Formats: sequence, structure tokens, C-alpha cells
Amino acid sequence: MVQKPIEYRDASPAVRAVFDDIKTSRKVEDVNNFWKYLAHDAVTLKRTWDSVKEVMAPGALDPLTKEMIYLAVSVSNGCGYCIASHTAAARKAGMTDAMFGEVMAVTGMANETNRLANGYRVPIDPAFDR
Amino acid sequence: MVQKPIEYRDASPAVRAVFDDIKTSRKVEDVNNFWKYLAHDAVTLKRTWDSVKEVMAPGALDPLTKEMIYLAVSVSNGCGYCIASHTAAARKAGMTDAMFGEVMAVTGMANETNRLANGYRVPIDPAFDR
Amino acid sequence: MVQKPIEYRDASPAVRAVFDDIKTSRKVEDVNNFWKYLAHDAVTLKRTWDSVKEVMAPGALDPLTKEMIYLAVSVSNGCGYCIASHTAAARKAGMTDAMFGEVMAVTGMANETNRLANGYRVPIDPAFDR
Amino acid sequence: MVQKPIEYRDASPAVRAVFDDIKTSRKVEDVNNFWKYLAHDAVTLKRTWDSVKEVMAPGALDPLTKEMIYLAVSVSNGCGYCIASHTAAARKAGMTDAMFGEVMAVTGMANETNRLANGYRVPIDPAFDR
Amino acid sequence: MVQKPIEYRDASPAVRAVFDDIKTSRKVEDVNNFWKYLAHDAVTLKRTWDSVKEVMAPGALDPLTKEMIYLAVSVSNGCGYCIASHTAAARKAGMTDAMFGEVMAVTGMANETNRLANGYRVPIDPAFDR
Amino acid sequence: MVQKPIEYRDASPAVRAVFDDIKTSRKVEDVNNFWKYLAHDAVTLKRTWDSVKEVMAPGALDPLTKEMIYLAVSVSNGCGYCIASHTAAARKAGMTDAMFGEVMAVTGMANETNRLANGYRVPIDPAFDR
Repeated sequence: MVQKPIEYRDASPAVRAVFDDIKTSRKVEDVNNFWKYLAHDAVTLKRTWDSVKEVMAPGALDPLTKEMIYLAVSVSNGCGYCIASHTAAARKAGMTDAMFGEVMAVTGMANETNRLANGYRVPIDPAFDR
Repeated sequence: MVQKPIEYRDASPAVRAVFDDIKTSRKVEDVNNFWKYLAHDAVTLKRTWDSVKEVMAPGALDPLTKEMIYLAVSVSNGCGYCIASHTAAARKAGMTDAMFGEVMAVTGMANETNRLANGYRVPIDPAFDR
Repeated sequence: MVQKPIEYRDASPAVRAVFDDIKTSRKVEDVNNFWKYLAHDAVTLKRTWDSVKEVMAPGALDPLTKEMIYLAVSVSNGCGYCIASHTAAARKAGMTDAMFGEVMAVTGMANETNRLANGYRVPIDPAFDR
Repeated sequence: MVQKPIEYRDASPAVRAVFDDIKTSRKVEDVNNFWKYLAHDAVTLKRTWDSVKEVMAPGALDPLTKEMIYLAVSVSNGCGYCIASHTAAARKAGMTDAMFGEVMAVTGMANETNRLANGYRVPIDPAFDR
Repeated sequence: MVQKPIEYRDASPAVRAVFDDIKTSRKVEDVNNFWKYLAHDAVTLKRTWDSVKEVMAPGALDPLTKEMIYLAVSVSNGCGYCIASHTAAARKAGMTDAMFGEVMAVTGMANETNRLANGYRVPIDPAFDR
Repeated sequence: MVQKPIEYRDASPAVRAVFDDIKTSRKVEDVNNFWKYLAHDAVTLKRTWDSVKEVMAPGALDPLTKEMIYLAVSVSNGCGYCIASHTAAARKAGMTDAMFGEVMAVTGMANETNRLANGYRVPIDPAFDR
């Protein structure tokens, strides 16, 4: 009943094409478990990879900033796999120990003040709506 | 039963001291509603302001990066007040329209893949635990 | 397309029976909007009211403590209606301004440390599993 | 300090009555861990089982559709136990691999667009409020 | 500072192309606010529409089932805009009042038992991992 | 890449000072893993401990009530570490089995009705805004 990862050797041509693109784009030997599990649905695999590649490409924000935002959201949502994988990805993109500590500090603080704002039922300042 | 904002003229000396520090630190004429509501609890007001000031100070990350992370978390949590106030704060710190678009795109994508990882019950790659 | 509240005069006998029990149990003239909207589904209305009545009855915890826990969860989830209604209910059960402030402070702090524990991937201490 | 599951042989008559009803209703040899842990509170055990039985019974929606909705919510909330148990339950009710893939795809997409709507502060179209 | 919706007449050719495709695919006169706000980022607009169109197309699940899952997730996340828009979409796809009531009942119950499973720290049954 | 806990013998003077204060305040031999991991960021360690100490001190609410609220929020957020540690802390502060059961019951019910209020789009009663 539990799904198993799909390895390259067992993958369909459609899945292999995505795996090949991930390996080339990221310059890695093999894809992460996330992609091997998504491979059970070749349509979702391709759409998700194409979207991630587009979203995480350098643009107005550099890849490190994007990875730290990805990590902050994953921490806030409590996704264990995503915290592990995006901590690794952010480290690879240049996140230092000090940067990691500050991402955690900001994420923690935001989660605290989000609830204080909810609980005190604070109305939006007119200046923010201009 | 609903609490009202506490204005400077009606505030206790302890609250005024925090308001003064916010105004000086941020170079603003008046504090936002968030602080005027928290002012009902002078202890929480002071602790929260001191913490926010410490966390958001320039360090390994610059203030703009910190504000964009704060915004991403607030968007992910769906805190209406915080989305409005931290969009404004990030704009003030230099967030352009293009940057805003990319923060939203990364936040959206992280929320999607967080759930795909949950649903497919993806185990953490050994490489991430080293 | 938007559902309207169902008032007592327009309600079915099954819905009126629940409304009557709410009014008697809580010693109120009329039921809150929550029940008037749930009244569109008489089965869910009855099950929800019976469950709430059972859960919120005095037991090992007094009604005030239960209402403050209900409020803390609602604040954490960001449910606007529930924050308003359970702040009112907790006030009615005896929550003072100082208690409200402390519920908010604990809720905020828990939300912060929950994310710090997630982000630092802290393993559970063996002592907690004994 | 950690609670242990309560097995049938060690259960009180009140707990056994619920276990018997679960086994008969679901045509299973034994109840899942969820019920064995809830058995520490016989009142919550009975209320929860009665509610689940009522909610999940065939009605305007068939059991498979209900199980897929249950799974989608559990994935969105990141409840590991519930993802495992409701994937199993949905499979038993007829969910195919293709259906599972589509439940995940919709759940992922909803989580993404929920945040885009939050972040862009999109106002509700008047047409939705009619 | 607050973004305004982008109407067709003011839209770039890239945005108009997406708007045209939405209007044709959904047989509607105009697009919803969601798309008019996303239009500030033509790349995210196109990626999101292409993804939603692919995910929500009839497949192993029919459009009504998909819309009800979308609604259940949006309710669970508390996204006000998404609840309004996907209630409307599900209604259009054939959701009756009775079906709506059952989607809400299942969503509510899943949110309750997700937390009971968390709180009682229920371990996954070996049968679910086979 | 994965961070290790920092033990007292390997800690900097700043970290040791916090550890000493935790041990004295809580009358324990050693600090929990949470603090040993946070020790990677001495500034966040100190701020978090000072805040927790202030927030959890007896005030208008007693320590047991505060711990149960902390537990309810942690359960609602699905933070595995926090559920384990705050169950232990609440037990130490006097939470009985019956109290634990009621905290879980209230937390579960709040999560359910929070979503029913969201889904039925219940407007806030004017009485709650007075």
C-alpha cells in the first residue's frame, strides 16, 4: 500500500526525461527522494519540476534568498522532509550558520507576532492600504 | 468587550517608553496599530518590541531579506494584518514589484511541494542527514 | 449562492430543538450566528452542539480554563469568527484583561518555539518517551 | 509518561462496546492504533467514533469521495498518522493510483493558490457574495 | 502600495493571452479577481493558470470531486477568498446543499481527529506501512 | 550538514550562562535538547529563554494552565517535539490523565469548529464587537 521510490532504471521515458533534466540543471548524480516518489504521477512530476525550475531561477532575487524563503515557509508549515531538503539546498547555495540562525529567528518571530495580531484583532492601518 | 488601540496621550510611562523607542528606531511619527493594541499588556509590548528589534537588525542577513522572509511566513499563515504591515515594511526596505512577485511565487511553490512531500510520505534522503 | 442565517421562526422542528437546548443551557435569548449558519445542516448542527456541550462541561478542568484553551487554538489557527466568539465566551466565564494578555503571550510564544524546534530539527529527549 | 495503546483484553466495558461497534461496522478483526490510544478517555472515544461513523456514512457523497477529502485535509495539515490511515482507508474504498495522484495534485495546487490569494490580498468578487 | 486589479483593457499582450484562454476554457465573460491580481506577474499568472487547468481537468476524478477537495483544503487553511471562489466553482460544477454540508462535516471531523492523533502521539499501524 | 546538540562542556561562556539559569530556575540536572540545539545561536538562545521564563512565570494564570495552553497550541500546530516536551512539562506541573484528556478534547473540538465557521463563512455577531 505504501509507495516505493521509482529509480531511473525502472522509470518510463517520460519520467527519465524529467530526471535527466533535474540532473543536468542541478549538476547532480541522482535526484532526491522527492522526485522518485512524485514519479508515480508523471504529469505531476513534470509540472512540479518545470514550476520549481522556473520559480527558483535567478531573477529579481538570487537563488540563496529564494532558498531561505523556501526554508522559512517549510519550517513554518512543519514539513519534515522539506526542512531537511531545503536546509541542504540553502547550504549549497551559500547559507552560513549565522544566516541559518537568522532565518530561524525571523521565522519564529513572525509566527509569534502573526498570532498576537490575530488575537488582539488588530485592524489594518489606513497607511498600509494606500 | 473589544479592545481599543491605546494612543500615546493615554499611555502609561512604561508604554510611552516603548512607543518612543519604536518611533526613534524607525524614524516614524507614530507607531502602527499592532503596538497600540499590544499596549494593553505593557510586559508583552516591551518583550515583543525588544525581540523584534533584535531579530530584525542587520546581521548576516540584510533588513530587506529579513522583511521578505517575514512576509513569506505571514502569507503562508494567512495573517491579514501581518501581510499588510510587512508588505509595507518590505517595500520601505527596498522590495520592488518584481521582488514581491518572486516572494509570492516561492511562497506558493513551497506550500505546494510541502503537501506533495507529506502526501507521498517521502522519506528523508540519507544525504540530508549527514 | 451565499448562505443566510436561519432564524428560529424559519427553522425546522429539529433545528428549533437544538436552538432551544442552546438557549436553555447557556441562559441566552438567542443563539449566535455560528449556530444559525450550521442550521443549514440539521445533522451537523445537532452533532456539533452535543459535542461542544459535552466537551465544554465542567470536568477535570473548569469552564474558564477550557474557554481559554479554545481561544488559544482559535488564535493559533487564525479563525476570525472563533477568536471573536471565544474571547466573548471566555470573558463571560471570568477571563480578566490580565488573563487575556497571558493567554496571548503563551500562544505567541508556543507558535515561535514550535517553529524553532521544527527548524533546528530537534530530536525528542529520551526522558519524554519514558 | 507516554501513553500505551489499550488492547481489548485490558479495556473497560465502555471501551469494549465502542471497539465492538467499530469492528462490526468496519468488518475488521481489530481496531487501529488511533482508537486504542483514544481509549484512555472513554468519553472522547465514544463521541469521536459516533461522530466519525455519522459523518463518513454514505449520504449525498459516497464513502470514497469522503475518504479522499479526509486524506486531502490530513495532507494539508501534515498529520503523519492520519495521512497513513486515510490513504489506507481510501484505497480500501476504491481509490486507484491515478485517483491518489489527482488528490495530491489538487491538494498541492490548492495550498499554492491559497497563499497567492493571501499574498496579493485579493478581494472577494461581488459575484461570489450573491 | 496596495496593488490594484489589472483589467483586460490595460493588460499586456502576455496577460491578455492568459485571460483569453481562461475565458474560453471556462466560458465566462470576465476573469475573477484572483487572475486580475496575479496579472501583476505575467510569468506567475501563466504558470498558475496552466497548472490549474491541467490539475482540474477531468481525469480519474471528475471536476465536481476536484472542486470539493479544493474547497475542503481552502476551508482547512482559512483562505477567505478561496473559500468564496471555490464554493462558487463547486456549486457551478453541481455541488448541492447536501453535498456542501457533507464536505464541511468531513473537513471539520478531519481537522479534529488530526489533532487527536497528534496529541495522543499515535504510532502508525504496521498494516498501513505494508 | 545536520546540526548536533551542544553539550555544556563544549559550550561558550554565553551559552553556559543560559544553561545555568535554566538548570537553576527549573531545578534540573541538564537542559532539554531544545536548548542544546538553539545553542548554535547564542543570541536566539538567550532571547528565547528570557522570553519563555517571563511568559511562563506565575501571573494571572498559574503554571499548569499555561503549560496546558502551550500543549494545546503545539498539538494544533503538529509540532512533534513540542507535544512531547510540553506534555512532560504539563505533567510535571500537575496535569492528570483526566486533564490531559480534556485538553485534547477541547483542542480537537476547536479545530473542528474553526473550520465549520470558515466554511459557512459565518459573520461576526455584532454583540462580539461591542
